[in-house]
Amino acid sequence: MDVIGAGLEAILQPRSIAIIGASQDPTKIGGRPVELLRRFGFPGAIYPVNPRAAEVQGLRAYPSITDLPEAPDLAIVAVAAEAAPDALEACAAKGVKGAVIFSSGFAELGAAGEALQARLRATAKRTGLRVLGPNCLGAVSIAERSIATFSIVLEGSLPPAGPIGIASQSGNLGSYTALLARERGIGISRFLTTGNECDVDIADAIAWLARDDATKVILCVLETCRDAPRLVAALEEARQAGKPVIVLKIGASEAGQAAAASHTGALAGSDAVFDAVFRRAGAVRVYSVEQMLDLGHAASVLGTRLPQGRRTMLLTASGGFGVLLADAASAAGLSLPMPSPETQRRILAAVPYASPRNPVDATAQMSSRPEILEAILAAILEDDNCDALLLLLSSSLYLPRLRSVYMPTLRAVRDKHPEKVVMLAVHGPADAVRELTAMGFAVVDGVGPSAQALAGLCALAAARDLPPPPPALPPAPPLDRGMIASEAGAKSVLAAAGLPVLPERVVGSAAEAASAAVAMEFPVVLKIVSPDLPHKTEVGGVVLDLRDAASVAEAHDAMLARVRARAPTARIEGVLVSPMVSGGVEMIIGTKLDPIFGPVVLVGLGGIFAEVMQDVAVRPAPVEEAEALAMLRSLKAFPVLDGARGRPKADLGAAARAIAALSRFAAQHAADVAEIDINPLLLRPEGQGAVALDALIVPTSERPA
Amino acid sequence: MDVIGAGLEAILQPRSIAIIGASQDPTKIGGRPVELLRRFGFPGAIYPVNPRAAEVQGLRAYPSITDLPEAPDLAIVAVAAEAAPDALEACAAKGVKGAVIFSSGFAELGAAGEALQARLRATAKRTGLRVLGPNCLGAVSIAERSIATFSIVLEGSLPPAGPIGIASQSGNLGSYTALLARERGIGISRFLTTGNECDVDIADAIAWLARDDATKVILCVLETCRDAPRLVAALEEARQAGKPVIVLKIGASEAGQAAAASHTGALAGSDAVFDAVFRRAGAVRVYSVEQMLDLGHAASVLGTRLPQGRRTMLLTASGGFGVLLADAASAAGLSLPMPSPETQRRILAAVPYASPRNPVDATAQMSSRPEILEAILAAILEDDNCDALLLLLSSSLYLPRLRSVYMPTLRAVRDKHPEKVVMLAVHGPADAVRELTAMGFAVVDGVGPSAQALAGLCALAAARDLPPPPPALPPAPPLDRGMIASEAGAKSVLAAAGLPVLPERVVGSAAEAASAAVAMEFPVVLKIVSPDLPHKTEVGGVVLDLRDAASVAEAHDAMLARVRARAPTARIEGVLVSPMVSGGVEMIIGTKLDPIFGPVVLVGLGGIFAEVMQDVAVRPAPVEEAEALAMLRSLKAFPVLDGARGRPKADLGAAARAIAALSRFAAQHAADVAEIDINPLLLRPEGQGAVALDALIVPTSERPA
Repeated sequence: MDVIGAGLEAILQPRSIAIIGASQDPTKIGGRPVELLRRFGFPGAIYPVNPRAAEVQGLRAYPSITDLPEAPDLAIVAVAAEAAPDALEACAAKGVKGAVIFSSGFAELGAAGEALQARLRATAKRTGLRVLGPNCLGAVSIAERSIATFSIVLEGSLPPAGPIGIASQSGNLGSYTALLARERGIGISRFLTTGNECDVDIADAIAWLARDDATKVILCVLETCRDAPRLVAALEEARQAGKPVIVLKIGASEAGQAAAASHTGALAGSDAVFDAVFRRAGAVRVYSVEQMLDLGHAASVLGTRLPQGRRTMLLTASGGFGVLLADAASAAGLSLPMPSPETQRRILAAVPYASPRNPVDATAQMSSRPEILEAILAAILEDDNCDALLLLLSSSLYLPRLRSVYMPTLRAVRDKHPEKVVMLAVHGPADAVRELTAMGFAVVDGVGPSAQALAGLCALAAARDLPPPPPALPPAPPLDRGMIASEAGAKSVLAAAGLPVLPERVVGSAAEAASAAVAMEFPVVLKIVSPDLPHKTEVGGVVLDLRDAASVAEAHDAMLARVRARAPTARIEGVLVSPMVSGGVEMIIGTKLDPIFGPVVLVGLGGIFAEVMQDVAVRPAPVEEAEALAMLRSLKAFPVLDGARGRPKADLGAAARAIAALSRFAAQHAADVAEIDINPLLLRPEGQGAVALDALIVPTSERPA
Repeated sequence: MDVIGAGLEAILQPRSIAIIGASQDPTKIGGRPVELLRRFGFPGAIYPVNPRAAEVQGLRAYPSITDLPEAPDLAIVAVAAEAAPDALEACAAKGVKGAVIFSSGFAELGAAGEALQARLRATAKRTGLRVLGPNCLGAVSIAERSIATFSIVLEGSLPPAGPIGIASQSGNLGSYTALLARERGIGISRFLTTGNECDVDIADAIAWLARDDATKVILCVLETCRDAPRLVAALEEARQAGKPVIVLKIGASEAGQAAAASHTGALAGSDAVFDAVFRRAGAVRVYSVEQMLDLGHAASVLGTRLPQGRRTMLLTASGGFGVLLADAASAAGLSLPMPSPETQRRILAAVPYASPRNPVDATAQMSSRPEILEAILAAILEDDNCDALLLLLSSSLYLPRLRSVYMPTLRAVRDKHPEKVVMLAVHGPADAVRELTAMGFAVVDGVGPSAQALAGLCALAAARDLPPPPPALPPAPPLDRGMIASEAGAKSVLAAAGLPVLPERVVGSAAEAASAAVAMEFPVVLKIVSPDLPHKTEVGGVVLDLRDAASVAEAHDAMLARVRARAPTARIEGVLVSPMVSGGVEMIIGTKLDPIFGPVVLVGLGGIFAEVMQDVAVRPAPVEEAEALAMLRSLKAFPVLDGARGRPKADLGAAARAIAALSRFAAQHAADVAEIDINPLLLRPEGQGAVALDALIVPTSERPA
């Protein structure tokens, strides 16, 4: 693998820029970058290229890239799709280092466009010229005033320079994010949109931003993934650089996935698998542009000061807002511990009529005697049960009287408790929000959004402390495809891989049956083995609960006689002896080969839980036991395994070992195994283990070379 | 019941207003209304009452209410809690018709405050003076410039006059709603906050607004309900008046409910029961102030033009936004049908590279050739599968070039298809949004919020077409509490009420057992009846699957002998004969007495579905069969009953009849029955009915007089 993100400085920090297809008309896509580079003061050379003009927007124009006085770092290609491959070749020949191709009409249109795009890709690969696009909105670096875009959202002004980098496959969503940032005064380092990704992909963008000094937090809009190992490696690089990655992965719904597949011309993949990959890589997922920006901004303000846990204290000046905030915090997954007796005492000392529980309601006293705020804030922040404080100020900073007391109070609190995580929910005014942000508070507008952003900070903290991903396992030798086709064969290879299966044996005589049973644990079960008797019970072909060798021998012969009498023509291959297991909870564990990310492991409760209630946990394979245990705990039905309503606790350790073993098997045999279903895995009470009662291995259609 | 909402015109349309406790200082709560009434130009007489001032804020002041030259319609009471009861008495004596009591220090503080509040209530009840509060933020009518509030959110300016009425128990949430409306230019008729509700309650507010010509849509913020029949009647009145009611019921989470109970001093009640009451009454629930205002505004713009169904076509100019919008629409519960072949053909005729599926992606062509918008909009709106169109314009109206084409196009489309429901997702500018709103488009900012608002309009349409609520049932004669205490007694009264129970019989001899079995359907089951043998199986006290009279007689005697041998000291009361039922799905049906709303009926699947997965449907009792069927269909586990994965379809009709019968029983016996659990109700395959296998009736602690 090449170094991911290598060479993107030509695109993001160019010292000189050529515009191929430069237009006199600043509303045309070849005119916009010329206009924007000049308007926003790009300090380097700007070279319009246009064979039919001597001058473009007051700048000297050149007939071709070859005619330029120097090789510019970056060339913007704004010509028709058909002309783009030759233009790119000319750039490479001139020694240009980076290109941005705005033009559409490539892979997004199907086969003809694919061929054209393949030529761009070939030029990039052959020459090392890094190419962003085609069919993209380009790249912008704020501090460098490098505006290689025709995005209409920069019509007004640039966002301020700041620590947030935006990498987006979607041009419109990426530039809409930049627009919202500008409106909210949130600082951006760069934004780049990767479009059809003929060369530079989203992994390049993330990895380069992970190394970029100007970027502290990375926002990422993802529609698909064209190269899973690169994406995973880029996310890991960002994590090791201590830069949070916040992902808006679109296509969460079936309708959205269908639209994404049609839009990008690439696989949409399973949304649940994307989730699992993000979780493993420590990227935190959001579901709207607004939520992405709120969390990214909060993370950039707080830096390394993230909540140690989800124990959140809520403070409001209004009972109604307190209830609403408690609802929103609960929905976001925050926990609301009760303040300690000492904290409650201190709150009541400040405001006798306050509600000192969580949410803390300081009542309208907070606006009539705003000086009480300091005492209450101190009490809460000094409570050992408080990982973070969420203070709802609503619209009160619009009132000069309140603002004049709240602002110095908050500054004093910030100075006294610099390490504490404080989220403020503030509805304007903008200058007060800026001032509070500069003090180091995370400030978000709105009850729901502030609670969601705080929960997102908790997720970022957890992601920071993730263990490194499990090491990749070397591929194992090919499987015997004939063998794994049968249930018995599947069970035997899985048993060898560490899965618990029953020690079944097919026997040919009463004596053999008895000795097989003795080698197991009593009680045992006998079942007739015949390809002609799918319904064994009806012919008397099942005997349960045999408790000693003598009964086994006797039952063996009696059963054979009975079956022969009732089904004289059936071919009988023997009698299966197996331990009788009962009790426990039926689970389903399995693996699938995701078309994007490869083998993944799944677990759910059996019966209709997994199927009808869609209560399934998924992770990339392999998983270690700790992660398998976390999968079990993440099930909505987990209480069923954990002793709900007087049930015995299930043997979670055994389930975790089975999941981990299965996941290793799937990871090592990805070339042979498309899918494994162990349905059911009987999970018995604590200390009694688990056992796979049935197993099916679906092979890949053919082994890749 | 009095006429709900009677007399509130004194509070909302007063011709003259006295302020008791009027202050010279416009930041004090007694000074604010004086200042606001004057600033916003209240046209009637304003009478400051203050025994220590001859003049307040330039107006002549009076020493007491008694000294006023006339009885004002409305008195604002802004004095200490202790002085409020006497002030209210003086108002009544003077002939004042309405009062707003700002003062806090009443029921929200516990027993002492309760007593003080009881005095206010007594005055109101005795004299007919309508009293809003205490502990409230008052009432505002925009068109009348009647500002009986001290809310700080009116610091700047009033919202414009318009069709949205706001009724809120929470002062802060109500006035925050008004603040957001003002910021967004959304017109408000009135807002009133009911606080502790010593007299005027939220039902009064809703009912009055339902009759108010200036109000077309009612937004309601609810913390609790102090009188369920009044609330239900008020919601029904609004529905019959054709005025949508949109409810922000806070306390959705356990933490929120605890906070609400502590804040209001009233019961929080079960959130699921509130949901059920709203659904029955046709009120649509939202979860944030922003969502409430978006939906209320959209409803006020569309009036009676609501979507016929949830089939929504999405149109964007960006693939990425289309995917995000499809995700949001799916999450909001909208359905996304495929456009007809003809519609797709017309879309492709306008833009050959468009994606003509749903979401329709008109590509960047929509901004480079905006005239195509009209052709595509027409194609979609004329598609028979389109109940509503959601067009995402994002921030494009900021661009004069696009705006100049989009606006006349949208106006032409509106004129040509005046009856179609079109939601626009638009991010600014404000004047363009106002213009589109005036054209009759529902306009909402944001991808998620626009999809949610459209789904809310669908819910409003469904609510409009709801059948009238089932008629109340007369109470039934008292139950025999001794009888319902036993399982057999409970089953017999429930059987009499129409519940299907097994025709079990306790018998004393083999002959009696045989004749009992013959009277049932074979096969039957025998079970020993003994208070000393909880585990019948262990002593051989259960025999299954008896298929004729002779086997029953033989098994009866054999069982008695076996049990007597194994448990010689057990008291044996007889043998239970019952039909053997098997197959089918175990359900739980039950009733509870909600502390606020009285009897409710519940249904869920048995086992852990209802308990662990919280997959339960709840409705106020009684329900009719159609509503019971809707309850079943609303379960997440419904596919289990509906033939998922090759299962037989369950007898839904039988389940619905059982639920309806149980709900009638609970409604008629609310005085006696606190709770009923039928666990399990065995629901058999279609045509085979249902049967209650166990039943428990928990009586109320004592029968109310």
